[in-house]
Amino acid sequence: MEPDAISNATPTEEMNGAGNLMDFLDEPFPDVGTYEDFHTIDWLREKSRDTDRHRKITNKSKESIWEFIKSLLDAWSGWVVMLLIGLLSGTLAGVIDLAVDWMTDLKEGVCLSAFWYSHEQCCWTSNETTFDDRDKCPQWQKWAELMTGYNEGAGAYLLNYFLYVMWALCFSFLAVSLVRVFAPYACGSGIPEIKTILSGFIIRGYLGKWTLLIKTVTLVLAVSSGLSLGKEGPLVHVACCCGNLFCSLFSKYSKNEGKRREVLSAAAAAGVSVAFGAPIGGVLFSLEEVSYYFPLKTLWRSFFAALVAAFTLRSINPFGNNRLVLFYVEYHTPWYMAELVPFILLGVFGGLWGTLFIRANIAWCRRRKTTQLGKYPVLEVIAVAGITAILAFPNPYTRRSTSQLISELFNDCGALESSQLCDYYNSPNMTRPVDDIPDRPAGPGVYAALWQLSLALIFKVVITIFTFGMKIPSGLFIPSMAVGAIAGRIVGIAVEQMAYHHHDWIIFKNWCRPGADCVTPGLYAMVGAAACLGGVTRMTVSLVVIMFELTGGLEYIVPLMAAAVTSKWVADAFNKEGIYEAHIRLNGYPYLDQDEFTHRTLATDVMRPRRNDPPLAVLTQDSTTVEDVETLIKDTDYNGFPVVVSRESERLIGFVQRRDLTLAISVETARQKQDGVVSNSMVYFTEDAPQLPASCPQPLKLRRILNLSPFTVTDHTPMETVVDIFRKLGLRQCLVTRSGRLLGIITKKDVLRHMAQMTNQDPESIMFN
Amino acid sequence: MEPDAISNATPTEEMNGAGNLMDFLDEPFPDVGTYEDFHTIDWLREKSRDTDRHRKITNKSKESIWEFIKSLLDAWSGWVVMLLIGLLSGTLAGVIDLAVDWMTDLKEGVCLSAFWYSHEQCCWTSNETTFDDRDKCPQWQKWAELMTGYNEGAGAYLLNYFLYVMWALCFSFLAVSLVRVFAPYACGSGIPEIKTILSGFIIRGYLGKWTLLIKTVTLVLAVSSGLSLGKEGPLVHVACCCGNLFCSLFSKYSKNEGKRREVLSAAAAAGVSVAFGAPIGGVLFSLEEVSYYFPLKTLWRSFFAALVAAFTLRSINPFGNNRLVLFYVEYHTPWYMAELVPFILLGVFGGLWGTLFIRANIAWCRRRKTTQLGKYPVLEVIAVAGITAILAFPNPYTRRSTSQLISELFNDCGALESSQLCDYYNSPNMTRPVDDIPDRPAGPGVYAALWQLSLALIFKVVITIFTFGMKIPSGLFIPSMAVGAIAGRIVGIAVEQMAYHHHDWIIFKNWCRPGADCVTPGLYAMVGAAACLGGVTRMTVSLVVIMFELTGGLEYIVPLMAAAVTSKWVADAFNKEGIYEAHIRLNGYPYLDQDEFTHRTLATDVMRPRRNDPPLAVLTQDSTTVEDVETLIKDTDYNGFPVVVSRESERLIGFVQRRDLTLAISVETARQKQDGVVSNSMVYFTEDAPQLPASCPQPLKLRRILNLSPFTVTDHTPMETVVDIFRKLGLRQCLVTRSGRLLGIITKKDVLRHMAQMTNQDPESIMFN
Repeated sequence: MEPDAISNATPTEEMNGAGNLMDFLDEPFPDVGTYEDFHTIDWLREKSRDTDRHRKITNKSKESIWEFIKSLLDAWSGWVVMLLIGLLSGTLAGVIDLAVDWMTDLKEGVCLSAFWYSHEQCCWTSNETTFDDRDKCPQWQKWAELMTGYNEGAGAYLLNYFLYVMWALCFSFLAVSLVRVFAPYACGSGIPEIKTILSGFIIRGYLGKWTLLIKTVTLVLAVSSGLSLGKEGPLVHVACCCGNLFCSLFSKYSKNEGKRREVLSAAAAAGVSVAFGAPIGGVLFSLEEVSYYFPLKTLWRSFFAALVAAFTLRSINPFGNNRLVLFYVEYHTPWYMAELVPFILLGVFGGLWGTLFIRANIAWCRRRKTTQLGKYPVLEVIAVAGITAILAFPNPYTRRSTSQLISELFNDCGALESSQLCDYYNSPNMTRPVDDIPDRPAGPGVYAALWQLSLALIFKVVITIFTFGMKIPSGLFIPSMAVGAIAGRIVGIAVEQMAYHHHDWIIFKNWCRPGADCVTPGLYAMVGAAACLGGVTRMTVSLVVIMFELTGGLEYIVPLMAAAVTSKWVADAFNKEGIYEAHIRLNGYPYLDQDEFTHRTLATDVMRPRRNDPPLAVLTQDSTTVEDVETLIKDTDYNGFPVVVSRESERLIGFVQRRDLTLAISVETARQKQDGVVSNSMVYFTEDAPQLPASCPQPLKLRRILNLSPFTVTDHTPMETVVDIFRKLGLRQCLVTRSGRLLGIITKKDVLRHMAQMTNQDPESIMFN
Repeated sequence: MEPDAISNATPTEEMNGAGNLMDFLDEPFPDVGTYEDFHTIDWLREKSRDTDRHRKITNKSKESIWEFIKSLLDAWSGWVVMLLIGLLSGTLAGVIDLAVDWMTDLKEGVCLSAFWYSHEQCCWTSNETTFDDRDKCPQWQKWAELMTGYNEGAGAYLLNYFLYVMWALCFSFLAVSLVRVFAPYACGSGIPEIKTILSGFIIRGYLGKWTLLIKTVTLVLAVSSGLSLGKEGPLVHVACCCGNLFCSLFSKYSKNEGKRREVLSAAAAAGVSVAFGAPIGGVLFSLEEVSYYFPLKTLWRSFFAALVAAFTLRSINPFGNNRLVLFYVEYHTPWYMAELVPFILLGVFGGLWGTLFIRANIAWCRRRKTTQLGKYPVLEVIAVAGITAILAFPNPYTRRSTSQLISELFNDCGALESSQLCDYYNSPNMTRPVDDIPDRPAGPGVYAALWQLSLALIFKVVITIFTFGMKIPSGLFIPSMAVGAIAGRIVGIAVEQMAYHHHDWIIFKNWCRPGADCVTPGLYAMVGAAACLGGVTRMTVSLVVIMFELTGGLEYIVPLMAAAVTSKWVADAFNKEGIYEAHIRLNGYPYLDQDEFTHRTLATDVMRPRRNDPPLAVLTQDSTTVEDVETLIKDTDYNGFPVVVSRESERLIGFVQRRDLTLAISVETARQKQDGVVSNSMVYFTEDAPQLPASCPQPLKLRRILNLSPFTVTDHTPMETVVDIFRKLGLRQCLVTRSGRLLGIITKKDVLRHMAQMTNQDPESIMFN
């Protein structure tokens, strides 16, 4: 009877595993087909379930007008979610920008006419502000001035210094306490976890309402406290929380983990879009860096969400300049071929910085995890914030917010620029056109700025290593860009002065005549920023596109690409991992990255059971009792069990999930539904249970929870193919057969462990599957 | 002995199928592992082969410095190929642009000072040109003037008319003859075929050197002849030919069909990049519209190739304006919310036009295929070219080249514009600022232009349907955009005049005060062009990004998106297929598109053999003779055969390709290598052949060509999963099992036929697999 046991079902009567599951769900069996926390989802099953749902709605829509309208609403719900995500994340980004501006300035002083104005807004609205003294106005008072009446002198300086540090400590303490008490998941940048979640992992609460609220508030506090961190990564997390929030409005998304991830991919794009004002860059960032499964439909919707978010942000207009982008720049001179040499050198610097930063930061984070240090996160944050504030105040380039610093470094020195960096000697007979100013010798301000910038560079490099990874929201884009921008500006000024003083040198002769404007130090800062950001994150296309959207012209794409390519090559030569992958590995998340697996191992080398292990835990289709099943569930912790025709033949017929099996045999559910099922009832996975004599207990029929199409490979399949299948189809497990006999099983965890072994990493660090 | 036959090999001794194949290739067995024309490639095998190759090079690189350098060269070859593709396709695009400019003008006249100058270049270099009469100069003479001395009068007009038609006939005859004689594959836009090739199909010669040469030359001729076609699609084909050409320089790409397709994807991006001067749009076009397998590495390289191509084109500077883009526009006024209504109406128009065009064009192409019409392609081209020229000459908007027409329609009417479209009444006391001109009443020129544009619209709509698909290179972007631009400009002028004359209407009151510049008709033209292009091709993100790169600002993305989204929705409501998919289906190419398969069928419904068919043709591992194999090959035309343990047990052990099997048993190769193999020799697929008595003929061992990891699914697997697997893993075939027994086989052709059946299409149209 063995081969015929299941063969008398005609194809049309049969239904697929997923279909069964759906019917099963209609009955009051709670939670069948859902996942536990820290488990991996089955993409194929999710997709199958969505197709079933869609099929049902399409069939129903022909029945009545109301059902037709409902089906239309269902079809449009994706766009509605995108619109809502765009609106909310744009609004939140605007609010965060405004709040950060105000609170950053609050560390130094307050606006007397309206305390909720930032320094810039305060002096803008004032009538007594002159153009030359744009940032001085009587309404804006520093703390010392307000409290003592004096604005000059050592006393006032020290009082300002003291209050600056106090505010920083206060903000950072508030931030870390809120994170600790209300939403532990709100810490960090969130991108490593979002990458893992998008690859199909479940982390409950990571994108919840509390995380959204607390992350938004603490992000403002953390950035305002002056710590060396940015808001870009956390904004992606905030946008994903918005996405998750709106998913719960539609059962299409809330009940399907696969569809939910499509929405989250689009939300990530919206997050980057508002972080930089770069919608196309945001979509490419989501595609290149964050997303795992990115169908074309998602591409289109991501673009929509990113645009809505960008426009919402622009209508809030937090920067007060009607610009969409964070750092708007406009250069007036082209670049020259010879400048590619310093640009490539900046690329090398970016690559080296990336490597150094990743190594040092991971080493420090590992130390935090393994030593006493990790037990005092609040103290750590306060200590780092204190040190940062104490060291940052004396240097004008570190005292202000990092975004302002980058913005100033990117800027070209126009004729009306009053900053210290633009303190050049003007030749007396110069006509001062607004834009096209020739290269000039640097004045004392520039030399002073160079010293201060060098100190700021060292400070930023060191403090960022200790800041990223603390228990507060912390992005990495802005600090990395700051490091690159400082280095770039220094190199730029050096090249400019060389070109001015030595324009007879052979390298300058061809492109830099005296009196011409040949070198733009701001461009060097921009190239340096791209190089450092590329070295740390290993972004490529999205990086160049974000930078391209900042400048709005194709003119400077070649310098940016040269630096980005060099930086990636240099950094990859040391270690292929970017900071996000490194943190994923540090935390042991089960993330299957897109790198190619090139080792010559076979499925048989990876599958369990290994050579001396006990045999594989299997169920038989018609010779197991309920008690056997209960014992199996109790004794093992596997996530599922293969079902075979008989132990002797080892012919595979299907796979059953542990979760479904547990639910099906538990007293509250199955036994009540099928009367007379007791411990020694037989469990049948076949189509029809045989007629048993009345003395035997009622059998339990479980074919409905059996997945009849488990994924199999032969034992000779090369592991590179197996890895490819796991990655592309998003499997949780795969059964291994040889000439039709079941040999073993490979789970995602086995694959990850094997890959780690092959690259000589610690295989035990991989998290629960 | 059945189960033990293959079990005495330890895992490490075993090698995977692909590995075997590589060793096999080292022996002088030609062509093993290659594909025949019009066959589908096996992506997994190609990937596996590349990994093997890479592994070999990495191992060798440790042996000597020379090998290390070779390995570095190998690693860099991808970038070298991209650079070469960018340089060559940029150069070709520049040459094509220059040649088209010159030859288009040649139809009307010639430059006396230098006959190789186009009209514009001729009058630019002339000293006698005044600003107001930019396009008149004594050096440029119309044919009638040159031949008779008169430039005015009916005679001169008729002579010019006659010569215009003659030149058009001459160019088109030359184009179609060259295509017919030298490179039949050079016809059409090429995008449907490239999509098919990128999805893994082999069409030998489609991307060959002759196709490249002839397509470049005939593209110039076809565009210059004035036919309603564009150069954008064919430029993608030309760039892909360049890609294929450079692949042959490196064995990494020339010997691996999978890797070759990565290069071709990037080349397609370079093609669009030079067609529009939109590198990011090109990459997204390749990703969204053309490519099938697009890993991140390809994204980055595509971007590089697209940029190099764009910069090469810019340094050639064919448009003489230092701009990268084909239609550079700059608008001076923002758009208003109320304008979204006409924009959305333009979107509806675009969707309707797309639907109409696709239906009519496909119907006409089908007629061409099935009736006498298809037998006279040369005559057809000449007839259409003649009709086009005769109808086009009298109307100034159709006489000039379509790109020039679009360019003029996109333009905003500045104060210095002399075109008929900008013939407005100026109020006498106007101060004439250069940019910000208020809305004015239309003059007689505008009304004349409106009539001519309406006629041009009807003409373009009709003639394009008959033009696309003829045996000459023909792109669809430019004609579609022209239709949209004309419609858009007409709507734009109508709205503008309404707003001027009725600015007290409630809808205009809020945003259009008298004397303000509120409506930009050029923007309407642009929105219309995007809508029509979207309706025909169903592009989404890439369309918006290309348009965004044309204007260079985010300002107008909302109008463009509104039109593109509406157009896609309207067109999709009628038919989901874009023009390229429709042509793929018309030609019966085996293309598995990305649409979701939502029917509830199972693998068992699709697999062969069907219920009443003869049993599956299989080989047994140790009971087949050479003669049996020869008979099997002769009697069947399957592309491969499953190998089972025995016919009774039906346990699958592997799969062997027909091509490899034929090569292996042919007299010239295998028999010579293994002495004593005769017709009744046994064929062994097992690891070790048993010791036979001396009287028996020498056995033929063929395990080396056996793929030990064939892909299997169970008969209960839902077809949506099977389709997903075929698509994502790029399979050629998949074996169907039930509880370990081989039941049947599903090939890509079966899948395509089943999908066609399910959507009620003609399943027999699918091409050879």
